[in-house]
Parts: sequence; structure tokens; C-alpha cells
Amino acid sequence: MSPKITTELLKQLRQVMKNPRYVQEPVQAYIVPSGDAHQSEYIAPCDCRRAFISGFDGSAGTAIVTEQHAAMWTDGRYFLQAAHQMDSNWTLMKMGLKDTPTQEDWLVSVLPEGSKVGVDPFIIPADQWKTMSKALRSAGHDLVPVKENLIDTIWTDCPQRPCKPLITLDLSYTGVSWRDKIVALRSKMAERKVMWFVVTALDEVAWLFNLRGSDVVYNPVFFAYAVIGMNTIRLFIDGDRIMDPAVREHLQLDSTLEPEFKIQVMPYGSILSELQAVGAGLSPKEKVWLSDKASYALTEAIPKAYRYLTPYTPICIAKAVKNAAETEGMRRAHIKDAVALCELFNWLEKEVPKGTVTEIVAADKAEEFRSQQKDFVELSFATISSTGPNGAIIHYKPVPETNRTLSVNEIYLLDSGAQYKDGTTDVTRTMHFGTPSAYEKECFTYVLKGHIAVSAAIFPNGTKGHLLDSFARSALWDCGLDYLHGTGHGVGSFLNVHEGPCGISYKTFADEPLEAGMIVSDEPGYYEDGSFGIRIENVVLVIPAETKYNFKNRGSLTFEPLTLVPIQMKMIDVNLLTEKECKWVNEYHQKCREVVGAELERQGRQEALRWLLRETEPLGRAQ
Amino acid sequence: MSPKITTELLKQLRQVMKNPRYVQEPVQAYIVPSGDAHQSEYIAPCDCRRAFISGFDGSAGTAIVTEQHAAMWTDGRYFLQAAHQMDSNWTLMKMGLKDTPTQEDWLVSVLPEGSKVGVDPFIIPADQWKTMSKALRSAGHDLVPVKENLIDTIWTDCPQRPCKPLITLDLSYTGVSWRDKIVALRSKMAERKVMWFVVTALDEVAWLFNLRGSDVVYNPVFFAYAVIGMNTIRLFIDGDRIMDPAVREHLQLDSTLEPEFKIQVMPYGSILSELQAVGAGLSPKEKVWLSDKASYALTEAIPKAYRYLTPYTPICIAKAVKNAAETEGMRRAHIKDAVALCELFNWLEKEVPKGTVTEIVAADKAEEFRSQQKDFVELSFATISSTGPNGAIIHYKPVPETNRTLSVNEIYLLDSGAQYKDGTTDVTRTMHFGTPSAYEKECFTYVLKGHIAVSAAIFPNGTKGHLLDSFARSALWDCGLDYLHGTGHGVGSFLNVHEGPCGISYKTFADEPLEAGMIVSDEPGYYEDGSFGIRIENVVLVIPAETKYNFKNRGSLTFEPLTLVPIQMKMIDVNLLTEKECKWVNEYHQKCREVVGAELERQGRQEALRWLLRETEPLGRAQ
Repeated sequence: MSPKITTELLKQLRQVMKNPRYVQEPVQAYIVPSGDAHQSEYIAPCDCRRAFISGFDGSAGTAIVTEQHAAMWTDGRYFLQAAHQMDSNWTLMKMGLKDTPTQEDWLVSVLPEGSKVGVDPFIIPADQWKTMSKALRSAGHDLVPVKENLIDTIWTDCPQRPCKPLITLDLSYTGVSWRDKIVALRSKMAERKVMWFVVTALDEVAWLFNLRGSDVVYNPVFFAYAVIGMNTIRLFIDGDRIMDPAVREHLQLDSTLEPEFKIQVMPYGSILSELQAVGAGLSPKEKVWLSDKASYALTEAIPKAYRYLTPYTPICIAKAVKNAAETEGMRRAHIKDAVALCELFNWLEKEVPKGTVTEIVAADKAEEFRSQQKDFVELSFATISSTGPNGAIIHYKPVPETNRTLSVNEIYLLDSGAQYKDGTTDVTRTMHFGTPSAYEKECFTYVLKGHIAVSAAIFPNGTKGHLLDSFARSALWDCGLDYLHGTGHGVGSFLNVHEGPCGISYKTFADEPLEAGMIVSDEPGYYEDGSFGIRIENVVLVIPAETKYNFKNRGSLTFEPLTLVPIQMKMIDVNLLTEKECKWVNEYHQKCREVVGAELERQGRQEALRWLLRETEPLGRAQ
Repeated sequence: MSPKITTELLKQLRQVMKNPRYVQEPVQAYIVPSGDAHQSEYIAPCDCRRAFISGFDGSAGTAIVTEQHAAMWTDGRYFLQAAHQMDSNWTLMKMGLKDTPTQEDWLVSVLPEGSKVGVDPFIIPADQWKTMSKALRSAGHDLVPVKENLIDTIWTDCPQRPCKPLITLDLSYTGVSWRDKIVALRSKMAERKVMWFVVTALDEVAWLFNLRGSDVVYNPVFFAYAVIGMNTIRLFIDGDRIMDPAVREHLQLDSTLEPEFKIQVMPYGSILSELQAVGAGLSPKEKVWLSDKASYALTEAIPKAYRYLTPYTPICIAKAVKNAAETEGMRRAHIKDAVALCELFNWLEKEVPKGTVTEIVAADKAEEFRSQQKDFVELSFATISSTGPNGAIIHYKPVPETNRTLSVNEIYLLDSGAQYKDGTTDVTRTMHFGTPSAYEKECFTYVLKGHIAVSAAIFPNGTKGHLLDSFARSALWDCGLDYLHGTGHGVGSFLNVHEGPCGISYKTFADEPLEAGMIVSDEPGYYEDGSFGIRIENVVLVIPAETKYNFKNRGSLTFEPLTLVPIQMKMIDVNLLTEKECKWVNEYHQKCREVVGAELERQGRQEALRWLLRETEPLGRAQ
């Protein structure tokens, strides 16, 4: 990796920072965040502006350019990468270290008195604007919105914004029509006495209209906004994709409809002016509902007194609770995914000893087996295929420079998943293709105990996920071990593999109460720097639990694993398991055997079936 | 209980609300919170203004009086009591019910346009002022500080503010001199670059100066403030108690001292003007540190730009971590407390079958036994002595109207504690003096399993208490049961029995990371309305844990029970315990036997000793 030479680019950027064509007054600093206008986790190439200006293309980072300086804030995952990718024009600001200034403090320390700091108001979320603006103001500076993105003005070969065809999902996949979703949304709006709801997150637009796209990698979404009134529906979307007869039929664009279900299709770029018109036309007490993570530009379009901001939108919450059709789809997707992994692990067992399988080869092979399954669309995230010391890098992705060959002497960790038209998968298995050491087995077994403790937990309806996080760690804690990430995240239904508003983490911010129908991951781990990584991850469905008693009639919940892939028995130290835990493993494997076995049989995959049967024999102790 | 007749009082209050002698402009509403100027949990009689004006004397409630209305907000614990104690002038606002308006919403609904709402700025914490003021302002009203407390102007027979003698604590109790505490505080101030620290909480003043008092029931504190500068110490305290030679000697008031350790004693009432003088004399960048729960009056004395507000003060955090002398004192106090309870339970076992022991008699007997112990000062809270259905009332305190007789047919729950000069205790035991039912034993055993799960937990240094809360509930959750209170609170060292900033609760607000030396309670329970209550509470000390490994060199913690009182074995269903849990009970009882047994022996309490030995025989299963 050689650094990107940015001298000329920075010169150009500093020119446009003073060019009255783009800025009302010169700005002494310009902030380049890494997000897009929808606060997406994965962004399109045309939105990779921070990578363009700096060369640093990690998933998290904020660049700030002043007349004299160029600085990049990123976190511990990316210190090395950013240092390699950026040239000497840039100063790396290592977030999380004690002496690293915040962006605000740094700006205050380097700016001349009374400076203007510019930022694209479409890229910065309203809540971040507020914090930054307040800090700058108290030091005598101003944060100002710069309408035209200054990076775009100098990015001559900027790729086009993607505008790929849409996929329509019928009731057999979604369970609820977009009309009924609009009705439910309007009833939530009526409850809160708001007249308008602005849909800004891409997965929320996709979910609401039962459409999918492929504008962004891994997330089956498309660039669009929507504004839902009590009597109107406006969809802001570009391209001729809306001329596709299937899409027109699906959205009933050419049918005679009650006016309140008639969708007005408008250009993607007209959202701001349309929203400003809505804002200007509000009567007293008419509120407009927005996520507090919506962009500053859209938030500002609504006068402050008329805004109703919440951390979670009603769509985010409705989307998290899967209905029967979605749940069944998720089950099907996970069975197909298990078939692919049985094939993969059977293949790896034969090939690894030959010394020809690298992390990249294994990842490609996993994709190949998945792509053979019905309704496969794409991967749901970049495959983490890591062996030996690479396994300890939690967000590892094999690249040629780091690509390691799998062997019978090292632990192999595979965290992977796919988008199928009927569901999204995300599974991690940790395997050894030779003989694991006693210590490796010990650590693996503690992780397994944590996995089971969450998966088998029974807890009251409405419990928040953070209250379950310690169950996953207890066995590790007993021996002085731990892992430095959360235990689980929400999973979409043929949508984003990471979604709000629920999860299982010691961090308490994304944590709406759990209810039946929600789907989260259960993925404790243990990582030893420089030697190995262990993680055991299933996607699990929140289901009602039968209990002996029922305190205050609240009802109880537990989890049903949707992922049905064997947990490698040679990694388990059976003596460390309780009887109950042994029983859990055996029942889980029995279910893998029956459900995935039947599908392997149906698909005529006899060799993988034999592998499955061998890998799901009952564990010794609980026989 | 007949209600207090408040017609005349309300008339008088409404007059002073318009009297230019007390208010600059008439106020259309007056708020009477239940706190004192220090946000104390227990308040002195002269501060019971809300009880005086309304008749309602529960521990939580806020009264608001307008020209037309008088309304009282309180929570579920007090709905019945408030309804009984208040006459028809008052409207009860049941907090927590869906249709109950907030104080702000109610005020907005009843006030004429552009109203003034008055409140004593010394009683309302700054953070509450902010919320209330903002809500009123957005509806066109104003929250105004009324300097003279309007209740005091009409409370002709208001008791005097207590001004009881002080107790000085030497190094053998405190471990650290007040001088060294000041030095440590100043170093924390220097770290945060603040020049002044204002001590407003009574237990923080007491802790800082190694003094105790008895101005307030149960909490060994005295009315005072302190303002600590980098070179000055000001103590605001009334009465001739400061003339006591022991106190003068302790504070070195008459010694020649370096000026930065010279304590200036000033009248309690002069805090505001002195603080205003400090505020007026600040140079740029000189900050003043206050708790964000300090009163609005004191907070306002410092211009906004100079305030440094935090939820926990450095004293609150330092006070929570007990040093060796404090820990040893707490151990001694708990051994003496256990002696008293062995005597009590032995006595109850003999007396209860006679049918003559009521809840009040039992509570008095407990106090009697405790008062026989060395350095006993007073109880640390109102004894919860409850049998049968009264046990299900979590905050029960026996009064003649509810007083029930203990019998061999009902469960008895005793939650009690004391202040000794060397430590503070708080212990709950649940006993049966006849034969408990299988169901009672089952519930008790789940609670015990939860108690043990917390007490024996091993967790990383710096873990927040809320991450341990679910361990206490897991066994109950498995059967669909739960309890509706937190699992533990911080405990002071001969100070408040409830103190911040740590605890163990699903609520995450009072939750600084746990570290060795902190002391909390471990008190899961189970309550069945109308039939019984179960709670098992020990006070436990956070100690370093030995573990097999040591991830990232963080170190691990666990708990050591300071409370050493047998857990009644006839309530335990041994078959529901794991081997590990049985072992925990047996080892705990072995320690009670050895440590408390030796003290009973020393005190010549043979009968209680025999009771202890019988109650601490090893449990069957683990033998």
C-alpha cells in the first residue's frame, strides 16, 4: 500500500473553500465526514468523499482540512491502515488515546479568531451538527452549511450515484402490503399527533414499500426518501427504474386509488425543496416526525417548533418485529445457508491438509456454495475468513497482503452471511482442522457456555438486551477472560445485516425492549492477540417462553436459533459443560441433523450430508 | 388516620403568594417539593414543608398550589396514604398512571396566560429547575425564584433547624485525616482545572471533615456546607457545637496552620452571599465545581460560564471506595450486628409460638439487642418488620393500624440496620417459625440462588453494577418470576445507608464502575401480593478476585459478604441448589459460625451461640 498523493487535491479544496461560487463567505475549515445523506453503514463509491480526499478508505473516519492543516480522526481498528494510506500532508488523530484532541478542541486550537467552519448539511446528522456548532460558537467560531459539496466540485472523475433496478417483494415474502404498512404508520403518527413523517434511512424506505435494490454493496437498498402525510405519499427516487412495469404494478402507480394511497413519485434531489414547502405550510400544532439522526439539511427544513425528533422511528421499531411470513423466510434462508456451510466445511476438511487453501480461497468457496442456493442475491457483509493470529483481528477481511494459508495447526474463524430473497444470514463458526490444544478447547468452551447462556435464557417480556449481555460473559469472567465487543445486533429480513433498535450489548444506547418476533445475533468470542480468535454466532429469533409461573402476567421470552450449523465438537472440552449445556448442544445438533439433513438429502448433497451426520453425533457426557 | 384540614393554611399561602413583602410580583402558582436544601433522602422536621401544607407525610411527593387548585404528585407506594391524609382541598396526582399529567403539563393547563410560578430556589435542584423552567417558558409562563420560603412564612410553629453536637472521628475510624482528604480533593480539582469546589450534600461535608452529627434521623449528618478553594477552606455551620473543644482540636481551629489548611468557620446562612462573592471575583478560565443536583440558588450564584457541573462529585466517588480502616470498621460493625440478630432470632423462635410478638414488638426487640452493642449510635433506617401479606409491601413500616402478630403459619421478613461508630449495617432475613410450604421454599430458594449468583460473581475491574443485576434474577426468570426493585445500593461507612455513585440495578443512572473497596448491598427478593414477601440481603465488599487468567491485565473483582447472619435452612429446597451453591451456603455459614461464634462467646451469649451453631450446620447435599 503506498499512500495517496494529495498535495494537489488539498490545494484545489483550499481554493474552493474561498471561492464565492461555492461559499457565501470563505470557510477557514471544511469537515468531510465519512457518511452519506442517509447515515448508511455501507456507502456507495460516489459517497466515499473522505477516502477520495485523503486516500484513507477504512469504514470510519472524519477528515478536517484548514488553510494550514489536514487531519484525520479514526479509531484503533484503523490506525495502521490510515497511516499507510495517507501522505505527509495529513495528521492522524488517534481516537480513544488520552492525548488526542476532539475535532472541536483541535479546531478551536488551530483556527484564527472568528472563523467559519463549513460542512455539507446533507451529510452531517442533526445531532452531530448541534454538538459541533455549540462547541465552535462558544469559542467564537461558526459552523456553516455549505450547500454544494466541496469535494464533489474537485472530484472530476467521481462515479455516478448508482441507480440499479428495483426488486419487488410480494406478500409471501413481506407478510404485509405496503398499503397496510402506511396505514399502521399513520396510526402511529396519529397517536403522537404528527401530520408528516419523513423517511430518511434507506432500509426504512425499502421496508415501507416492500422494494429492494442494489445501489449499495451488501445492503439491498436503493437511494430514495419518502415523506408520508396523513393523506399523501411522496417517494423521492431517480431513474427509469420506476418505469419498470413490475414496479409500477407493485406500487399501483397506474391504478385508480383512494387519494391517500396514491404515490407521488418525485426526483431524489427535490426532497429538500419539497420538505421546505411542507415546513412553510404547517399550521400551528402540526408536527413533522424525523429521526434525530436525519441530516441537518432536512431537519432544518422544518421550523424548530414543528419538529418531532425521536431516536427510533416507528418504521425502525415495526421493521424489527418480524411477522410470520418474514420469520418463515428467515428460517428458509438459514436452512439454505446451512447447506452451503456444510458443503464448505466438508470441502475444507479435505482440502486444508493439502496446504492450498488461503483465507481468500475459503471465503470465495463459501460464496460459491451460497450462490448455488435458491434466491441467493449477494453476501450480507464482507466475509471475515481468518486463520491463526488474523482471527484475533475482530473486523478482519482478508486481502492479498495479509492472506494466510489455512493449516491443521491453527484455528480458523469464518464469519459470513448472505442476502437471500427470503432472508438475511450471519453466522460465525470457529474450527480446527487438526488437533486443538487443551487451552484452545478451554477458551472455545467458555465462549460456547456464554453462547448457550444467552440462547437458552428466559427473561420477562420487554427486557432490554443489555440486561442479557453478562450472561454471555460469565463463564469467561470466572477465569479472568472477556471480549471487547457487544454480544449481538439486530438483523434485517432481506435487509441490512445490522439494524436497530435492539441488540445485546453492555453499551446501552441501541436498546429498545425485546419482544417476540425480533431477530438478533448471539455472538460471544474470545481473542488472543497474535495467536487466535474464537467466536460462535447464531442468528436467533425472540419467541415466547413457557414458564412454570407468570409474575404479574407479564409473560416470558426466550430465543430460538435460526442458524443451524454444527458447532465443532473437537473444540469442546465436555468436562467444562454442565449437564444442561450438554443437553442444549445435543438438542441443537439434533435439530441441525433433522432440518438441514432433510434439505441436503433433497438437494442430493450426499457427501455434505454424511459430514453433517458425523458432526452432529451426541456429545459423550449427556448420553 | 383523619385528613389534615388545610383550608385556612391554603388561604394564608395564597395571600403570601401575592404579598409584595415576599414576592416581587404575585405568583399564580407555588411549588412545594419534599426535599431540603441538600437533596437529602431523610429530612429534618423543619424541612417537612410539603407535609405541613398538605398533611401528606410520605417520603416522596410534590405539592403545587395555585389560586384555584392544590395538587399533590406522588408514586404508587403512597396513593392510599396520601388519599387518607389529605382533605378535599387537594387533588391527588397518581404518578406512573397513564392519564396523570406531569407537573408541567398540569400547570400549563390550569394557569392563566403569562403566569409566574414560584419555588424556593434553595430547595429545587438546578437540573429540575432547568426542565421545569424550559417547559413553562415554552408555554408563555415563568418559573421564578422566591427567596423567602412561603411555607415558612405561614408555619408559625415550625420546629427549629436541628443543631446537635458533633462527633469527631479519629484516624482509627476514618483511615485518612481531613487534611489529606482536602489535599486529594485539590488534586482532583487541579486535574479538572477548577479553582473551587462547593460541597452541598450533607454526607459529603461529614465525610470530608471526618465529623458526624445527628441533625437528621438515621443519617449521621449535620447541616453544613463547605467551599474548598485551592488555598482556602470555608465551613458553613451554625451553633455553638463548633465551640466544643474536641471539635476545635479535631479541626485544628486554634492551631497555627499553613494558610491553605486553615478552616474559616462561617454561618450556615451565609453560604449564598459568600458564593456570590466567589462568583463575582472569578478571573476568566476559573471554574467552580458543583454537583448538578446542587440547589438552583447556589448554582445560580456562579455565572454560567464559570460552572463545572458533574453528576458525581469527586467526594462522592472517593467516599465510595473504603480504605482499610473503614473496611475493618465495617467488618466489626457487621459482627456486632450479627450478634444482635442471633439474639433476636433465638428470642423470636421461643416467643413467636406464644402469639404475643407483633411486628412492632419484634422491631423494638431488634433495636434493643443492637443498642447493647459497643459504639451503637442509632438505627440506619426505619425497620421493615413484616409478616405474611405485609411482607409483600416492599417499603413497609409497621404502624399500629397495620401491626400484625407473628405466627408459626406465616413468613416473617426483617429488613433492618444500625449506625455504629465504626460502620453502617443493612441486612434482610426471611424466616419461618413453623413449617414453610413447598411453594414458599421454592420461591425462597430462587431468591437465594440469585443472591449467591451476585455474591459469588467474578467480573472485570471497572464493570458497572447494572451488568450484574440479571445474575440476581436469572433463577426467578427461569420460572417466570421477578421482583420490581433494584438488586443493591451503595452503603456508607458510619454514614448514609443509601449512597451513590454505585449500585446493582437494571436502572442505569446511578452507576459508576465498581472497584475494590466499594460496598454495596445484594438484596434480591420475591413478593406475592396479599400473601408473603421474601428478601435475602447482605452488605458486600468489592474485593480483587484471583482468576486463572488475566485478560489485558485488567484484573477481576468479586464480593466478600460483610453481613454474617445465618440464612434459614428450613426455607431452602436443597434439591434446587447446584453443588456450587450448596458449597457457597456451607462456607458462608462456616464463616458466620467462626467469626460471629467467637464474638458471641466473648460476649458470653451462650444461648444465642447455641442457636447460631444449630443454624449453621452444613446443608445435606454438599456434605
